[in-house]
Parts: sequence; C-alpha cells; structure tokens
Amino acid sequence: MFTDEYFMKIALQQAQEALEKDEVPIGCVIVSQNRIIAKSHNLTETLNDVTAHAEMQAITSAANFLGGKYLINCTLYVTLEPCVMCCGALNWSQISKVVIGARDEQRGFINKNLSLHPKTEIVTGILENDCSQIVKDFFKGKR
Amino acid sequence: MFTDEYFMKIALQQAQEALEKDEVPIGCVIVSQNRIIAKSHNLTETLNDVTAHAEMQAITSAANFLGGKYLINCTLYVTLEPCVMCCGALNWSQISKVVIGARDEQRGFINKNLSLHPKTEIVTGILENDCSQIVKDFFKGKR
Repeated sequence: MFTDEYFMKIALQQAQEALEKDEVPIGCVIVSQNRIIAKSHNLTETLNDVTAHAEMQAITSAANFLGGKYLINCTLYVTLEPCVMCCGALNWSQISKVVIGARDEQRGFINKNLSLHPKTEIVTGILENDCSQIVKDFFKGKR
Repeated sequence: MFTDEYFMKIALQQAQEALEKDEVPIGCVIVSQNRIIAKSHNLTETLNDVTAHAEMQAITSAANFLGGKYLINCTLYVTLEPCVMCCGALNWSQISKVVIGARDEQRGFINKNLSLHPKTEIVTGILENDCSQIVKDFFKGKR
C-alpha cells in the first residue's frame, strides 16, 4: 500500500489545491515511517513570497513536527523537481530520500550540477506524466 | 552617510544578535531608498529550522512590507556570502543589488557556479574582516 506512487498521489492532490488558488500547481508531502508529517503546495502568489515553495513549507512543518531540524528517516515527495533554493534547503535538512514526479529541465537543480546531501537517495519519474501535465496545462491556460 | 559600509554595520549588529543566541553569527538588512525595510539574523537553532537563514527571513519580511514578492530597487546587505538556498531565493526575488561582507568559499553560491538574477548587481568585500572574524571566532569557541 505505502508505495512511492501512493504518496505521490497525495502530493498531486496538493498540486491540485494549488491550482484551485491559481498558483503554479506543485505539491509535496513529507513521510516518516509511512506516516505523512507534512503536506503543502506552492503559495508564492497567495503569500506574496518567493520563498513559499511547497518544499520549503514542508521542510519547516516537518521539522516543527519532529522537534528537530534534521529530517532523518524522512522522505519528501514532490510533483516537480526542486529548484536551486529548495535543493539548498533539502541539502541543509539532510533528508534521507527525495522522490520527484516530473523533471524541470530549466529551473530544476539537477541540470545546475547541484546535488543533495550525500546521505540523500533520489528517485525520479514517479507518476511523471500526471505531475508534468498539471503544470503544462496551467501555463497553457495562462497564455 | 548611506554608504554600503553604513548598512553593513547594521547587518553586523544583527550578526551580533545571532551570536548572543548562540546561533552562527550572520546578519542581514534589506534597504529600499535608503530606508531599512527588513532586518534579520540567523535563527536555525532557535527555530529548529534549516530554512531560517538571515536572508530567507529578510526576503519574506521585505516582500511583506512592500506588498509584492519582487524586491525591485532593493539592496540586501549580508555579512556572509549566501548559500545555495539563499542564492536561489534571491534569484526568485529579482532583487536589484546584493552586498556581501565576507566570502564563504565552501558553502557560498559563487564557487558552485550559480548566479543571481541577471538584474542583480553584486558587491563583495564590504567590512570583510569584521564579517569574517565574527564567524571564525564563533566556530573557534565551539571546538
């Protein structure tokens, strides 16, 4: 039951919540021992804050839940590849695993030759089509 | 009166405030039309949050003050070269100018071949010795 696809679906539901607020539809969950300890979606427009990416909010919430700033034995699921800012934050958090839906060739950290913490396992391509399509549809609607 | 040194001194006072809380002593101010619109210092230990770097807090505060997420015609003064996370956030903010006290060869964004927004002017080396010394003394005290 608790597969990567299972948790990515919940991240996608978060992306859908962002979409309903006319935000770039990116969603995220953080899981510890098969329990969701943080859920979030992009809120940069609603909060007028470029730092309000889904991942940043989830990192802060999860640390708050755990009572410690390092996200040991935690997995972050995010529908779109993290940007430079979120990559930096994930690096500081020493999170154990990051699962990415769709790649972001232009804004994502992978093509910038950045890496996450040496302790962090990375998985990509989980529900890739759905995660990619929701963002494409959003920007198509904006043109 | 309103020189880069003037505002960096205020950023250094913020670093001093961090030091008094046993935080890595890094401070920051954001200035718009010679007026300080945000002041902050590193609070990662106090808040148990790896994202609570001085720059991140200042970006959020300044956007809140301005009522918009882009920090146009703003200058950020920070005592230590921003990390990857803060570089990414500054890039999203499209801030006009970033003034750096001391370089951070290991953790700073410059040696990672990252850049800020094309609109952002960068100045380094303002009160470099003071900005560097306060961090060196902090880590020396920890050993």
